[in-house]
Parts: sequence; structure tokens; C-alpha cells
Amino acid sequence: MNRNDTTARIAHVFRGTFVHSTSGAAVEILQNCVLGVDDQGKIAFIENDRDEESLSKLWGFGASDIKQLGQHEFLMPGMVDTHIHASQYSYTGTALDLPLLEWLNTYTFPVEAKYKDLEFANNVYTKVVRRTLKNGTTTACYFATIHTDASLLLGELADKFGQRALVGKVCMDCNSAVPQYKESSSEFKPVVTPRFAPSCSSSLLSELGEIANNNKLHIQSHISENKGEVELVKTLFPGCKSYTDVYLKHKLLTDRTVMAHGCHLTDEELEIFHETGSAISHCPNSNISICSGMLNVRNVLNHKVKLGLGTDVAAGYSPSMLDAMRRTLDTSKALTIQDPQHKTLSFEEVFRLATLGGSEALSLDDQIGNFVVGKDFDALRVNVCVPEGPIDLFPGEGPKRFLSYLIYVAGRQVVPFPDT
Amino acid sequence: MNRNDTTARIAHVFRGTFVHSTSGAAVEILQNCVLGVDDQGKIAFIENDRDEESLSKLWGFGASDIKQLGQHEFLMPGMVDTHIHASQYSYTGTALDLPLLEWLNTYTFPVEAKYKDLEFANNVYTKVVRRTLKNGTTTACYFATIHTDASLLLGELADKFGQRALVGKVCMDCNSAVPQYKESSSEFKPVVTPRFAPSCSSSLLSELGEIANNNKLHIQSHISENKGEVELVKTLFPGCKSYTDVYLKHKLLTDRTVMAHGCHLTDEELEIFHETGSAISHCPNSNISICSGMLNVRNVLNHKVKLGLGTDVAAGYSPSMLDAMRRTLDTSKALTIQDPQHKTLSFEEVFRLATLGGSEALSLDDQIGNFVVGKDFDALRVNVCVPEGPIDLFPGEGPKRFLSYLIYVAGRQVVPFPDT
Ligand SMILES: [Zn+2]
Ligand SMILES: [Zn+2]
Repeated sequence: MNRNDTTARIAHVFRGTFVHSTSGAAVEILQNCVLGVDDQGKIAFIENDRDEESLSKLWGFGASDIKQLGQHEFLMPGMVDTHIHASQYSYTGTALDLPLLEWLNTYTFPVEAKYKDLEFANNVYTKVVRRTLKNGTTTACYFATIHTDASLLLGELADKFGQRALVGKVCMDCNSAVPQYKESSSEFKPVVTPRFAPSCSSSLLSELGEIANNNKLHIQSHISENKGEVELVKTLFPGCKSYTDVYLKHKLLTDRTVMAHGCHLTDEELEIFHETGSAISHCPNSNISICSGMLNVRNVLNHKVKLGLGTDVAAGYSPSMLDAMRRTLDTSKALTIQDPQHKTLSFEEVFRLATLGGSEALSLDDQIGNFVVGKDFDALRVNVCVPEGPIDLFPGEGPKRFLSYLIYVAGRQVVPFPDT
Repeated sequence: MNRNDTTARIAHVFRGTFVHSTSGAAVEILQNCVLGVDDQGKIAFIENDRDEESLSKLWGFGASDIKQLGQHEFLMPGMVDTHIHASQYSYTGTALDLPLLEWLNTYTFPVEAKYKDLEFANNVYTKVVRRTLKNGTTTACYFATIHTDASLLLGELADKFGQRALVGKVCMDCNSAVPQYKESSSEFKPVVTPRFAPSCSSSLLSELGEIANNNKLHIQSHISENKGEVELVKTLFPGCKSYTDVYLKHKLLTDRTVMAHGCHLTDEELEIFHETGSAISHCPNSNISICSGMLNVRNVLNHKVKLGLGTDVAAGYSPSMLDAMRRTLDTSKALTIQDPQHKTLSFEEVFRLATLGGSEALSLDDQIGNFVVGKDFDALRVNVCVPEGPIDLFPGEGPKRFLSYLIYVAGRQVVPFPDT
């Protein structure tokens, strides 16, 4: 135990149970620990509480500064939603009766066109940021729309409410279904979010790839969501060997790339993901809801490809990462029902995917994802035992408290919201 | 419009939107209607509100007696959980890592043995009744344990909190895994709930069949949940053509029978279900959670077999029928992903299965299941727009109210609970 940074002061100290993932353990439960957060929002120490006295001398905090977690409480890392369409939140839970390409033309493109109206955008984006934050999503990787002003507004709202957000202004220059909802290449801003190959010309993809590489920017898009789309891409890009090859050829597969879905990727394509360090965002609710396919996460992990979970609102009907975790387990179990040789994901592995895995998929694992000294303190303080809460506890129930969730991002308490 | 029963008085009148199912329409939305409930808890009338004046004269109620539903409110029939193990509620959400037969031996049988302690039973049964009622389950078909006193207690608790319940004392006389948790045939009481074929001797099954038929009793059990179990039954009952044939031969398939699961039933077996009027309880959360299989509900409905939904707590981790509805859709969509020719269930069809379908499966459709004159008023008053509620509404939101659920069973308001 030593203290490298002598300028930082301690802002919070928690004592109790901490649950997180490491590269070695899908779930590590640290009991009787103390965790300190400095005034920059970073984790200063996490140690067994038998060292509390020396820690308190080293960091200059007193016994009264310590927040003791209750008997049914624990701290866990904030969850990372690696793929969510903020602009689609206004119709969550409706319109799940069409396959992908028809769904886009019928529901998605007409609504997204409304985001040139900033008042409309402000209403929806405020709700999606507050809702996901309340659900425990401390980091979200958003698709916005093609509108620059509204995309910037989404970033400002995330900042206002304290959510860590990556915001992508969608880039697309091919749209025959809703012709007025596209942009010409000359308009685009360097937010590297090609919608998906079928809605982008080769020259747009090339320009985006170049911008991303020159500026070391993150890249997000969709890949291999359903079989019809895979066939369409083959037709549109006859010179490419596979869907993955389309993005590879346009220099869009980097170690800062996250591609949603990947349900129908071949082993050869997964190999390219591994080699380029690109990640997959698994969105099981969406994949089941619009019958896209079932990603074999075990196979992806066996190929050592980075993988996080996404809600994919609104093709996914739930904006909750807990739902994404449950649906990940369901999909894995459905694959086991089909093939008893398939090795089902454990709950612990899914917990890792929702936290540390997500941070890796977004290349943010040097900053967030678990409780490691030097990382930002993004955390959920969870109490599983609240009156009128969703869980009945057995047996030996302790004192109940009216607290269900306190959420921290970079050491700042962001939920409950200051105004409620 | 006429009034047959001149002795009944009107206890409640509601005006607004009513959503329910009929044999012709999976979902029928009745707007601007008035519904009257008599003092026996039965639906006295349901008519368009343009007839309100004549109804008020006929039934003798005034304008001030009418409960007006809000802009975001509607009434729907209470949901019917056709299969739930009350005794397993204490370990809901844990221990889902084993297939059926190992799961029973490792987790279920040892816990169920505790129910000879009535204090233990009272604690768990109170919680399961309150929880499911709060979740909107107005009718539950329970498995208890082999203990008569505790099973009676479950019935009393359902009665106390106002839930309509069928309670089955479990009958089983074969249990090699936990030898002290079984009963000898001489002890059993006429509650017709053979656990499943592998835990019952042929003579126990025959006795139960005879009792049920002589007394016109309901019968519930499990069938064809996973493939290992199907093979085991073949070995145990070599004289029977199929799992279904085992129950048929022991006279346990009647029009008051509901069998849980049925994932691996053949078309020939479904034909027997149709002919005998026996029903299936589809428990998708359970089937996925312990990797049992995926029931093709469309095929069951095509065979004109009665079908309701069940939570199957605790092999299903959620005691909520809304979850059972979502998982029913998921399973149907997973089948469509496997076979694009499969005709996916619609949301509306699933709504019907959770309400009217459940009432048919339990042979209670003459009493409950939808809003038909003469049936009992079992209803949920739902408000989709509450502050801090789980849904964000768009656009044109009206006045918000702090009401989420009011639940009626046979005209009596049972949620919120009188003591909270
Ligand atoms: Zn998407
Ligand atoms: Zn069961």
C-alpha cells in the first residue's frame, strides 16, 4: 500500500461488500473492504478493512467520513450499454412486428427525420438519458441521428445528468425509402458512425475510415444482424469477401471499433475482429424481438474477440442493462437447448460482459469497468432489500431501508437526480 | 339490454377503456364504455356509455357512483397463472444451473421437506400470495408440498388476501434422492396433484385418477418437460406408448386437467390432449432457464388444445405473469429464427393466453377470463403513466397520478393491500 499522488484528496470512503469482475474472475466478491475515491473521482485505494487505520493516516480521513454499506447492500461497477439508439427511445416497446430492413423503412427513418426539431430532440434525449442512468447505465454508446445540432444536444444532456456517453451522429448517404432522410457527403461531421454498410456509399465509408484513423476516433456501426441484410451487403459490395471485409477494406475495423450484433459472422470474420482488436456489441433483446438471429457469444469469446452488451433501443424494447443480461443468458440457454454440447454462459460471465466487457468493447477499460486503483469510480450502490421492492428476501432479513439505487459516475452521485 | 336478476345491486360502475380477449378477437379494446359490478362481484353489464342513462335507471346508480378511468388508464382481466410452485418461492432466482432431474434432487426436494414446519410455510406462502397478487395474478394454480396442513394454510392465505387459488397438495410416493421426502399411499388426501409420472407408482396414479373422476376434481401435473425425463418415463412405464399414454391409462386426462410444459409432446400426444379436453400450461421462463426445451405454442393451438401460461416458480425465476407473456413471445420468436416458416405468436395472442386462455386451461372460463356479463369481476386497473413509473410516455402526456395498479377479484379490491 502506498500513495503515489500526493495532491489528490479523498472525497468518499465506503466500507462493506464490493462485487466486480477481473480478467481472472468473472465475479469477485470483496467483503469487509474499504474503498476510497479521490477528489478527481478516481479510485484511490481498495483494501481489506483490517488496514483501515493505516489507510486513514495515509489519506487523512476519519472514522466519521466512512460510509458503511448495509447488510443487504453492495457496490458494483456501473453498467456499460455498448449500443443504444437514443433517437428511437420515443417508440420503445412498439412496432416489433417487422424484420430489420422493413422495420427501418417503416418505423425508424420517418421518426429519425423529426430530430431536426431541437425541442423534439430535447424531450426525447432528456428522457433516455435519465431513464438509462436510473437503470444503472453509467456509460452509454449512443447512436443519435444525422442531425449535428441534436447530436451535440444529446452529448450536453448526458453531461448535465452525469452520464458518461459516446455520441455518434449517424452518417448515411443512401436512403431510398425515405429520400429526405439522408445527407450528402459534404455535410458530415467527424463523428464516426456509419449507420451500416447498406446505407453508406463506398466513398462515404472510405472518408469515415480515413477521418477515424487520422484522429484516433471511436467507430461504431452495425454488422451481420440478419440474413437478409447479409445477402444485401453481398449484392451492394460484390468486390468484398464478406460483410466484415466491407468494413475492413474501408479501414473501419480498429481497436476503437464496436459493431452491433454480428449474429451471422463466420469464424473467418471473427478472426478478423480478433486481429484488428474490434469489438462486438451483443444485443439479445433486439435480436430476438425482430427475429434477427442468435449470437453464439461463447464462440465469440473463444475467438478472443472483445464483447459487451447493448440494449439496442428501440429494436430492443427494454432500456435496461439488467434486461440485456437476462436476455443474454436466455439466448445462450436457447443455444444449449438446440445443441446440448454448447457451453452455456454463466450468470457470472454475463455480469462481466455488462461491466468490464463493455468497457473493453468501448476501449475504455483503462478508465472504467471494475474497481481498480486509478480507474474512475463509476458505481452502483445496490440495496436488494427495500420495502415494496421487487425482491422478497429469505430468511433472516435485516433492517430494511428506503434506498434502492445510488449511482456514481467518476465519483459524482448522479442518481437520485438532484431535482427529484 | 335487460336485467334478469332483480335481487342483485350494483356495487361498482367504471367508465372508460376496457381491454380483453374474446374467442373471436385476441384483443378487443372497448372505449367509452361503462361496466357495472353487482354486489356478488359479478359483471352486471358492459355497454357503450351512450346508454349510460338507461343503464342508470335500470340498475339504480347515479352519476356520482361512476368511477371514471383516467386518460392513461384501462381495465383488463386479472391474469391467470396456471402453474406455480408456492413452496419453491423461497429460492426464486437462484439455483438455475442444473437440468430438471438433478435440479429436483439437489434443490427442490430438500427445501420442500421443510414445509412440515407451519411457521416456515406461513412465511413463504404469505409472501408468494402477496407478491403474485401485486403482480396482477388474480388466479393462481398452485403446487404446494406433500404436507396437508401447509397446503390448507396456503389456501387460507390466498383466501385472506383475496386471490382466487387452486391448491394442490403434491402426491408422490417414489423418491430415492431424498428418501424422507415422500409419503405412503395411505396418507394422501384427495387433492389431485401427482408431482409427475417418475415420482408416482402406477397404483398411486390409478387411485388419484379414480378419486378425481369420482369427485369431478381438477388435476394438475407435469409432462414432457425435458428429453431426459421423457426417456426416464419410457423406462419406468414400459407398457405405455408415450408419456401422455401414462396419464391417459391412469384416467388423469380429463377436461379439468392441466399439465405443465409439454415441450416434447408429439402430434399424436397433442391429439389425445384435444380429445380428452386436457390443457397445457406453457412455462417459457422455466423451460429456458433450466434448458428444458421450447414448446411450439402455435402447433398446440393448431391442435385445438387449451393452453394457458405459467410462471413455474422457482424453475422460472420470475413470479410475474408479464414476464411469462414476454418469455412466451421470446420463445415463439426463437422458433421463428430457427424456422422462418413458423408463424410467430402476436402480442395480442399472448395477452389472450395470459387471461382467457388461462381461464380455459383451468376450466374456469365460465367464471373468469374476460369481461362478459355474468362472469366474476377479476380485473386490473392499470395506469401506464405514473411519476417514477417504469414507462416514459410520448407525446402529449396528460395529468399524472400516483396510481399504478388497483386489483379486483370477484369485485373486491385486493391490491393495494388493506394493511399497507
Ligand atoms: Zn442498432
Ligand atoms: Zn412445475
